[in-house]
Amino acid sequence: MVDQRLAKKAADYLKKVREKKPLIHNITNFVVMNYTANALLACGASPVMAHAVEEVEEMVSLAGALVLNIGTLTPQWVEAMLRAGKKANVLKVPIVLDPVGSGATRLRTESATRLARDLSIQVVRGNASEVLSLAEKEARTKGVDSLHSVEEAEGTAIALAKQLKTTLAITGKVDLVTDGKRIIRVHNGHEMMGRVTGTGCTATVMIGAFLAVDPDPVEATATALAYFGVAGEKAAAQTTTPGTYQIALLDALFSIDEEELRKGARIEVVR
Amino acid sequence: MVDQRLAKKAADYLKKVREKKPLIHNITNFVVMNYTANALLACGASPVMAHAVEEVEEMVSLAGALVLNIGTLTPQWVEAMLRAGKKANVLKVPIVLDPVGSGATRLRTESATRLARDLSIQVVRGNASEVLSLAEKEARTKGVDSLHSVEEAEGTAIALAKQLKTTLAITGKVDLVTDGKRIIRVHNGHEMMGRVTGTGCTATVMIGAFLAVDPDPVEATATALAYFGVAGEKAAAQTTTPGTYQIALLDALFSIDEEELRKGARIEVVR
Amino acid sequence: MVDQRLAKKAADYLKKVREKKPLIHNITNFVVMNYTANALLACGASPVMAHAVEEVEEMVSLAGALVLNIGTLTPQWVEAMLRAGKKANVLKVPIVLDPVGSGATRLRTESATRLARDLSIQVVRGNASEVLSLAEKEARTKGVDSLHSVEEAEGTAIALAKQLKTTLAITGKVDLVTDGKRIIRVHNGHEMMGRVTGTGCTATVMIGAFLAVDPDPVEATATALAYFGVAGEKAAAQTTTPGTYQIALLDALFSIDEEELRKGARIEVVR
Repeated sequence: MVDQRLAKKAADYLKKVREKKPLIHNITNFVVMNYTANALLACGASPVMAHAVEEVEEMVSLAGALVLNIGTLTPQWVEAMLRAGKKANVLKVPIVLDPVGSGATRLRTESATRLARDLSIQVVRGNASEVLSLAEKEARTKGVDSLHSVEEAEGTAIALAKQLKTTLAITGKVDLVTDGKRIIRVHNGHEMMGRVTGTGCTATVMIGAFLAVDPDPVEATATALAYFGVAGEKAAAQTTTPGTYQIALLDALFSIDEEELRKGARIEVVR
Repeated sequence: MVDQRLAKKAADYLKKVREKKPLIHNITNFVVMNYTANALLACGASPVMAHAVEEVEEMVSLAGALVLNIGTLTPQWVEAMLRAGKKANVLKVPIVLDPVGSGATRLRTESATRLARDLSIQVVRGNASEVLSLAEKEARTKGVDSLHSVEEAEGTAIALAKQLKTTLAITGKVDLVTDGKRIIRVHNGHEMMGRVTGTGCTATVMIGAFLAVDPDPVEATATALAYFGVAGEKAAAQTTTPGTYQIALLDALFSIDEEELRKGARIEVVR
Repeated sequence: MVDQRLAKKAADYLKKVREKKPLIHNITNFVVMNYTANALLACGASPVMAHAVEEVEEMVSLAGALVLNIGTLTPQWVEAMLRAGKKANVLKVPIVLDPVGSGATRLRTESATRLARDLSIQVVRGNASEVLSLAEKEARTKGVDSLHSVEEAEGTAIALAKQLKTTLAITGKVDLVTDGKRIIRVHNGHEMMGRVTGTGCTATVMIGAFLAVDPDPVEATATALAYFGVAGEKAAAQTTTPGTYQIALLDALFSIDEEELRKGARIEVVR
């Protein structure tokens, strides 16, 4: 089941992130800003948070990837995301979108849908409800929890990825990555990750870091999720309580070496 | 002194929170958002932070309780709080208000007073200065520190609770809970809690979690504060420095079992 | 090389901070708010974060120092900084400015320059690129990383400090403090500090805390940086991974005693 080429690629591209230290420009939510900035530093990338419409175009011009996360959005933040995203598209800076809570409120669903429609987005990562809300008008999430299982979601996701011309990553017990043609499942991760706020958002920034060094969105996403999942497993070997787990996860992102990732990555290529 | 019925109720309602995992909608300050989200997850509840006027009514419709915290407020945030609060009142979603820094500036005092007047709020939690600033025009706080002792404050609090028709929780060395008729003191907690930012705000979200499963605001507040205080004591047994204490407190919220809480809760019913 | 008078002063003024617990008013970025608030508490000061134009003048009137940090600025926040700063100037409340990312975008460079021009600022702290962007129009930073070495920067900094009539602190492997006449180097610190987001911002708030008890901006800055650097060294003796380091640094700020600081401070008076 484990794809050795992608396991090796995960290790190689983690090394690349650590060598190139790409600047990742985040327009993201207030809850996770500190944690995702620290996670990006821990993996070897260089984070910057900037959301003013007056500066996002300049900032994204310096970046290796742009992360858009609608976790605590207002219409003004969506404007900044659109402006940064359009500039990123012109400059071929890859974009990853995290539609936090899309499906839960009209503002979130409409904002996520608009970003996905008006921008060329390389990867969208969320739980099943969030990602599939980009298709289904009636989808509703209970906060940021998932109502759909990954299994149920697979068929819908493949069709949606084709329609949106993007790569979708639905994370859960098993992560699904698809661009409508290729299908990859990532079997790494640990249930403790759900006990800490912002781990989904952190998966998204890891994808951003790998996108900054890997031109293939499907493989960048799968390898980033494997890396993050292996870190989650390593942290879970240290502790069973969420406070220390939150910290151990940052430590693991930093301390995992390439060999450890190559051996630990459980990436399955379905097709 | 220890009320056994309430000690048992604390344990039972902690179990209920963990089983029902109520969604707690927070409109709160930037400083504590990450910490209170993690604290809610650690206790078993499900946090969401959302402040856009465009979505707060929808979001609160999904919630088991609404937390309003004015720690880094602006007039736009107060508008969002009023809008969410009015919807919560219609839907009978309980509200807990944390008037952070009320008394320190006119904006805070007027905002807290307006929220307390225009909404039906089930519980207000703060230190003595903050809570009593809802009554006394001339009250001033030095930041978020308390100028009044709980003891001094008791008489004033009872009158104010009657006037505002709400439950007041004044936290300090001993916590006071009163709706003007009943008076409860909670003797749990540890001075290390004052060494970490946002522990007051975290007490408030714990009240939110218990309010979501308990229709009695006085007892929900007292049991939530006992739970949080026992967690504070447990964390203090692990460490004497504030960085690790902050983390140990999250761990304790997660790891306390019902029996531990029942035995540790020191809730005194005064009348 | 070690200046014994300043090493002793560092210890004495840390004691003063712990005794007086000065209120430090922060108008700062979303990423570090929680961390710098906890750092201020850990060192013994009392933090408040408040950014609404409606309240910043009142809040700064209660404060021992004002910290302005442009890390996630918008024009509205700059307005609040100017308003708070003007009031601080009238009241002789010292101001420390952290021009995060100045040089990276026009908004940041112009905002930092405007604050430095329109306000009487006691201390500006940043990396070399950020601080020197206040002079050089063409300076550019890659995010918040430094393009200039401290050594290269020294000459420029001395001239700029004279021109701006302020004290400049350029932090890096060795920290430089100068008001254009006096020159001090601080040799404390550890490279792990660069692995955690917001350590620069935390250095800035430490300067704020020391400024609140010490009328001499050059010495307040040098002693605060020595204290923070010694804490960084102490934390690095505990751990080599960034998650636990972030926490150990808060612990160290709290646990360092005056004797430890006096012995550990490596402050060099160049002239």
